[in-house]
Amino acid sequence: MQATFGERLTATFERVGPLCVGLEPSRDVLRAWNLPDTSAGLAAFLDAILPALAAQRGIVKPQAAFFERFGGQGFVQLERALGVLRASGVLVILDAKRGDIGSSMEGYADAYFGSGPMRVDALTINPYLGVEALQPVVTQALAVGGGVFVLARTSNAEAATLQSAIAHDGRKVYEHVFAAVEHWNTCARGLGSIGVVVGATLADAQLGLERSQAPVLAPGIGFQGATPEVLPRHFAGVLNRVIPSCSRGLLSVGPERFAEELRQLSDRCSTLIRL
Amino acid sequence: MQATFGERLTATFERVGPLCVGLEPSRDVLRAWNLPDTSAGLAAFLDAILPALAAQRGIVKPQAAFFERFGGQGFVQLERALGVLRASGVLVILDAKRGDIGSSMEGYADAYFGSGPMRVDALTINPYLGVEALQPVVTQALAVGGGVFVLARTSNAEAATLQSAIAHDGRKVYEHVFAAVEHWNTCARGLGSIGVVVGATLADAQLGLERSQAPVLAPGIGFQGATPEVLPRHFAGVLNRVIPSCSRGLLSVGPERFAEELRQLSDRCSTLIRL
Repeated sequence: MQATFGERLTATFERVGPLCVGLEPSRDVLRAWNLPDTSAGLAAFLDAILPALAAQRGIVKPQAAFFERFGGQGFVQLERALGVLRASGVLVILDAKRGDIGSSMEGYADAYFGSGPMRVDALTINPYLGVEALQPVVTQALAVGGGVFVLARTSNAEAATLQSAIAHDGRKVYEHVFAAVEHWNTCARGLGSIGVVVGATLADAQLGLERSQAPVLAPGIGFQGATPEVLPRHFAGVLNRVIPSCSRGLLSVGPERFAEELRQLSDRCSTLIRL
Repeated sequence: MQATFGERLTATFERVGPLCVGLEPSRDVLRAWNLPDTSAGLAAFLDAILPALAAQRGIVKPQAAFFERFGGQGFVQLERALGVLRASGVLVILDAKRGDIGSSMEGYADAYFGSGPMRVDALTINPYLGVEALQPVVTQALAVGGGVFVLARTSNAEAATLQSAIAHDGRKVYEHVFAAVEHWNTCARGLGSIGVVVGATLADAQLGLERSQAPVLAPGIGFQGATPEVLPRHFAGVLNRVIPSCSRGLLSVGPERFAEELRQLSDRCSTLIRL
């Protein structure tokens, strides 16, 4: 039987550690890699960085916005990156934050968990249209051994107004997300395949997640102000399920230092988060 | 000086009326047009429908999910559709519901309001990461005469738990969206360029929008259960700013009847919403 996303994530934790590399080919990153801010520059960036990521066989999170910048050609490059990474055994979490009503969510389910060229291991999704509206993507992901990460509490300061608002039943918006994710993981043995996004910058990040089997994607290491050293404190109680993610902090060192910086940061995270 | 999105929207209202055609090439729609569910089928669908949309010169809302289904080739087709529609004078609202933290929102701003091939007249965006996080796209849209529609109250039943949750200041989540949009339209003369998405299915849809200059994108006509006849009641007080949107209900009639069905529905909306 096919392994679930949760099982493959557990295997990756044991083999490489929990660090996730955020693949964000922004204008600044392309400049740091001495490349033009064009789709040809994006292609050259991928040629340069994919071998190091493939060799590590860890977790990589491409950010869709920085591929969409280049329109159809950008998506063609994203498709190529997804193919190379998955063929190498890298676990790919596409950070696209898709969220829509059910019929359109079926379109996104087809796109990222169908038989097409954009197949990913996991996708980030946005619950603004209601957690129930996410069901088509969750169902399709689980059916093919994939996973999702639902936005819950993000790393940016301006997010709390909405994400901590109180729903009619007295629970906060992000607690509704946690409850839905716990429900979707009911049948998981070990680590679940349905995770949450909780910013590494939040000091009480684990509250309400202790009883869940949800993996916790934690962006914000590096440029957004969190260091790996905060993880044991911010994620106490769920530390063995945390995926700390670093994007600009890693990529901005440029092509000469990237592989060594990746090795060092990965080791630091593995040491801090002993499984 | 370049016309603002709000000005071009006003001109389109006067010339054609307020109806927006939701371009959703789903599996079911491609079947209704006797086409295979492939990127070649998508291309053939666009070849068949774009001339009628270009001739009408109204408002068209492509749904990104149904192009992304086909990966890079789907995005290449989306790029082609955007180019044809905009060159014909159609007002294009891309329904992509993008939402992210500031740095990634800059990527989406580049994608849809930059000099690249995906340029649109307006984009739907998602405020889950905080309305302030949307600023880069809003700023860039206004700078180039574009617009955005921020998700506020969507047409699906399961959305109310989150969208009507109460923030720390006692206001509902969607009221925060309305307030931000009102602020962003401060300098607009006449119709603003920053709008909201409010489902046509909601009976009290206009509450809180009366003082605003925001255009109101109102999906849900047709398959989701609202008829054009509910608009004067649901949107009393903001009726001259409503853009009723119909997708599956229009497209599912197939190629022979589409142009006539479009003409009839457009006339019905124009009659009901006298400007």
